[in-house]
Amino acid sequence: MEDKILLAHGSGGKLSHDLVKQNFLPLFDNAFLNKLDDSAVFELQGRLAFTTDSYVVNPIFFPGGDIGKLAVCGTVNDLSMMGAVPKYLSIGLIIEEGLLMSELKRVMDSMRKAAQEAAVKIVTGDTKVVNKGGADRLFINSSGVGVIPQGVDISGSNARVGDKVILSGSIGDHGIAVISQREGLQFSSSVKSDCAPLNRLVAEMLASGAGIHCMRDPTRGGLASTLNEFASSSNAGIRIYEQSLPVHEGVQAACEMLGFDPLYVANEGKLVAVVAAKVAEKLIDIMHKNKYGKEAAIIGEVVPEHPGRVVMKTRMGASRIVDMLVGEQLPRIC
Amino acid sequence: MEDKILLAHGSGGKLSHDLVKQNFLPLFDNAFLNKLDDSAVFELQGRLAFTTDSYVVNPIFFPGGDIGKLAVCGTVNDLSMMGAVPKYLSIGLIIEEGLLMSELKRVMDSMRKAAQEAAVKIVTGDTKVVNKGGADRLFINSSGVGVIPQGVDISGSNARVGDKVILSGSIGDHGIAVISQREGLQFSSSVKSDCAPLNRLVAEMLASGAGIHCMRDPTRGGLASTLNEFASSSNAGIRIYEQSLPVHEGVQAACEMLGFDPLYVANEGKLVAVVAAKVAEKLIDIMHKNKYGKEAAIIGEVVPEHPGRVVMKTRMGASRIVDMLVGEQLPRIC
Repeated sequence: MEDKILLAHGSGGKLSHDLVKQNFLPLFDNAFLNKLDDSAVFELQGRLAFTTDSYVVNPIFFPGGDIGKLAVCGTVNDLSMMGAVPKYLSIGLIIEEGLLMSELKRVMDSMRKAAQEAAVKIVTGDTKVVNKGGADRLFINSSGVGVIPQGVDISGSNARVGDKVILSGSIGDHGIAVISQREGLQFSSSVKSDCAPLNRLVAEMLASGAGIHCMRDPTRGGLASTLNEFASSSNAGIRIYEQSLPVHEGVQAACEMLGFDPLYVANEGKLVAVVAAKVAEKLIDIMHKNKYGKEAAIIGEVVPEHPGRVVMKTRMGASRIVDMLVGEQLPRIC
Repeated sequence: MEDKILLAHGSGGKLSHDLVKQNFLPLFDNAFLNKLDDSAVFELQGRLAFTTDSYVVNPIFFPGGDIGKLAVCGTVNDLSMMGAVPKYLSIGLIIEEGLLMSELKRVMDSMRKAAQEAAVKIVTGDTKVVNKGGADRLFINSSGVGVIPQGVDISGSNARVGDKVILSGSIGDHGIAVISQREGLQFSSSVKSDCAPLNRLVAEMLASGAGIHCMRDPTRGGLASTLNEFASSSNAGIRIYEQSLPVHEGVQAACEMLGFDPLYVANEGKLVAVVAAKVAEKLIDIMHKNKYGKEAAIIGEVVPEHPGRVVMKTRMGASRIVDMLVGEQLPRIC
């Protein structure tokens, strides 16, 4: 019989403590967490960024990652998109009774690796267990705190006419990797999730000397929804060029077969930024040197026309309005 | 047809934005949240406390509260137990497709009220929706950040021989209220959850001039598990007196019928502290003046005998070892 998670692992009693002490503390070993107090305590000064995300991806393991890597990278990226240096993360687990202990350990270990790559510490956590059928295997919430360096002012509302729109790489990889795994689709077995921590890439971009007005990671709702958020918050018109959008062949093929538009498919290791025109080329050069920015490209600009709207020039030269995602294209992708 | 939550409310697209803008922003209205950026940004200085908790209570509405009030109070209390002044909260919702919009609104409104009472701001959030059967109605994660005043040093490992153990009021009310609602038990219909934010009570205790060594809210696992945490972290012996423990009549009756021990039943508006002997009486006087400390009492002391263990003197004069909760007495109580 393989070890499984029992309801008692969420009791707050002996089994809860054993789970934490034997399985979690050795992985995330740090002085803040090891105290096991009700809160982690640390010193920080200045402008802080604070964010939260819950992950309900199905399946929990997929090509290029799993729900644990996703939870760490997602929160690291949400902090990074404000220009913050991510520092401390919390992890809240909701586990369905019966999950294999080996699967939980695999997920926790991948959180450890992702936290190590991103140089963040997991300092506090919580474990709840619900009865069989009360949840779907494993949900993870990760919240995080980071410090925003002096002079950095990034917000979705800062886009100005003349700014360039830059994208760090190909779109749609995460969504297609997850849906392929879930549905057992063969044709796109080569597509891997792009799930990655972007804080180093962002630090390198910021070190070049500002000029970044808006920045966000286009996750759920895809690139189209994020650009619409910028357009709406800034009351600015955004024009993008279809021919400039990097889309991997496997993703393109899968989208054509499934009737998806890669503009609306989730990414988990990409950023889109609106930057001052004069720094755009320089930023692209910097991004090309980072493994998570190799395919970075200028994909469009902020224009005086159609404020609040995103318009795409197609390969054929036509203009097409790109709306925010309506309905749900791919549920439980993150 | 009543409005229900759809999968598309978690898409990151138009319905997600509408839900947030129409239903969440007006309730929690504050400049940090209203920006709808990837992280909330605020200024804080000094020693910070950071905590997280997920709530999976079943049912989501119960006498004395609901999952929303619980989520806000629970995180406020976890910060308060470190002596921190709670400042900013995040909210992560995992909603099962089909939840009535009216129920979600009721929960969100009760979060608003609890946040108002505790004087904390909900500054960032996330909404995920899973397919019907993939979760049980509604799970909520709340994380929080607070500031620890100068000179405060509270930890489960600070108990010293001679210290007194004080409890802010009756035990077992929350657990019995939830289980009665869940099982439709009549006998204890008068028992209400004690769910409450304790930050003002803690502030009043701290203002009296320190002397608080350990402090924790005895939630899952009950008073017995929390005292065992203190005993274990401090390697100290703790002796409590059965006759000093406040237990409401309805809770006592329910425990007798169901075979529960109130020492192991969850509380959501109580604190237990280990304090210097010379300040114990003074602290009790202060606590009695706060509505959440009316029944505060000295329930025991830290002794040189049996380090790492909790022992209770029963009403009959016998000594009984009080272990940490083993197994699961009441699942999904918070």
